[in-house]
Amino acid sequence: MAEKCVRVRVPGTSANCGPGFDCLGLACTVYNDLELRLTREPGLSITMTGEGATNIPCDNRNIVWRSAQYLLEKAGKDKEYRGAVIHMENRVPLSRGLGSSATAIVAGLTAANALIGNPFNRREILQFATNIEGHPDNVAPAIFGGFTVNAVTNGRVDCFSFLPRFRMKFVVAVPNFPLSTRMARKVLPTEVPMKDAIFNIGRASMLVAALTRGNERYLRLGLDDALHQPYRAELIPGMYDVFKAARRAGAAGATLSGAGPCLIAYVLERRHAEEAVGKAMLEAFRKHDVDARILTLDLDTHGAQILK
Amino acid sequence: MAEKCVRVRVPGTSANCGPGFDCLGLACTVYNDLELRLTREPGLSITMTGEGATNIPCDNRNIVWRSAQYLLEKAGKDKEYRGAVIHMENRVPLSRGLGSSATAIVAGLTAANALIGNPFNRREILQFATNIEGHPDNVAPAIFGGFTVNAVTNGRVDCFSFLPRFRMKFVVAVPNFPLSTRMARKVLPTEVPMKDAIFNIGRASMLVAALTRGNERYLRLGLDDALHQPYRAELIPGMYDVFKAARRAGAAGATLSGAGPCLIAYVLERRHAEEAVGKAMLEAFRKHDVDARILTLDLDTHGAQILK
Repeated sequence: MAEKCVRVRVPGTSANCGPGFDCLGLACTVYNDLELRLTREPGLSITMTGEGATNIPCDNRNIVWRSAQYLLEKAGKDKEYRGAVIHMENRVPLSRGLGSSATAIVAGLTAANALIGNPFNRREILQFATNIEGHPDNVAPAIFGGFTVNAVTNGRVDCFSFLPRFRMKFVVAVPNFPLSTRMARKVLPTEVPMKDAIFNIGRASMLVAALTRGNERYLRLGLDDALHQPYRAELIPGMYDVFKAARRAGAAGATLSGAGPCLIAYVLERRHAEEAVGKAMLEAFRKHDVDARILTLDLDTHGAQILK
Repeated sequence: MAEKCVRVRVPGTSANCGPGFDCLGLACTVYNDLELRLTREPGLSITMTGEGATNIPCDNRNIVWRSAQYLLEKAGKDKEYRGAVIHMENRVPLSRGLGSSATAIVAGLTAANALIGNPFNRREILQFATNIEGHPDNVAPAIFGGFTVNAVTNGRVDCFSFLPRFRMKFVVAVPNFPLSTRMARKVLPTEVPMKDAIFNIGRASMLVAALTRGNERYLRLGLDDALHQPYRAELIPGMYDVFKAARRAGAAGATLSGAGPCLIAYVLERRHAEEAVGKAMLEAFRKHDVDARILTLDLDTHGAQILK
């Protein structure tokens, strides 16, 4: 019997959304595609094109394969399928804060799940993906699409996903240097002032209220952060100047995307300001000798999808 | 010319709502009424009935009068009206965490504003009330009703008020001892673990999402807190046992009301569990030798109102 093949498409994601440090995330319209065939014989064939094609391991360490294996084990099928043919087409920039590793995990899980008859639902896939990645910030929006609010209780993850009440463009400035999440975590303190915690609780609550109820005024207020961006600013030259430039050009606000170094501006679609915002962000970065490129994206509203 | 008289009704409020420390609040259907007449001659006549009638100062220190004066000054009318006749009917328990001082401030401002032809709108009243009280947590829901999300930026307050998508009962256990907010603040640390801050950001976001979108499952998750309740537990014997008893009896969750000592359980109306929840809370308190009484309240959806 010929082994079946499946093709999945998984969106890139932007975690934190400013004040929602380690809690909020969104999916956007830049995608990684995966074609997976599970084989009964051991052995791996991994090929790829696009972003990171020269940096991603093509052996047992490959995260798509490890995620597929994880799911097969959970389903008791790891003895049945011992190898794979994997092809990846990557468009999500690598190590830039757009959740490229989350796309690989979610792609591997979703594709393997589909090939064995979908024994697991999306909530279970989310739990598996969180176990592998260590946190749900990027895998949750990659699976569900839209905006997500996550809460982890004793390792058990819960996720509320929703679409906002207004249409937005996301203008992402992608600097030409990578930044490891480990490094971006290292600059954070383990204790923070209570007043900064309170600041972020208020802003994150405001952001969620603004998005769910469609209030533009509160969207502007809801994108400020005191808990992680101030510490990470030293790692991204000109960060606050880029934020300011984006706002001045018409964005509702701008934040670090995940742990950076990408910076993401939130632009209300009816403002038609995305082009001006992108130009302003590039210019502000250039003044700090940072080369960057711009991605202008929409909200992804579907999450991970089976293409065939 | 006879001086006009106005009567206003202001709801009690419950700040924090669990994870939304110093950011979230709600208004509930227990009210303080104020009758105010401004006089051209100096002199104060202050009478009151109900809660705290023997403890509230009836001279120049009276907070209703000071709030009325504050507004008259802002309007440039403090030379015109130099005295007042004030009658208060108080039903909101005093120093228990239901915002009794906020009701007095909002009542004084709203009544004085009405008597001079409403020169200020509700946003301005909110700013004045926040200036007087020092924080917007209780005055915001007292003015707007419903749930509120507050954010203060360099002293300037913003408030988003909304009604949740499901009907709830609030079961409030009122212990027979007062607790000053100052004391309840004193037990809080000025620095907190980052992980606790993240916990509360996630839960507060979840709570706002659950309320605005009407998701009961996430309401349950959204009421937990790591930033203030653990420190204040020592001031309220049996606090966590009362929370547990409320949940077991059918509440979605329970939290400190403001700085306490009142504890408030959130009960979905369709569960019809408010009576059982009240009994369970009293019983749990009694095991810790705390005498308490129960108020079963609805959400106030109007905020401060002029009655005549």
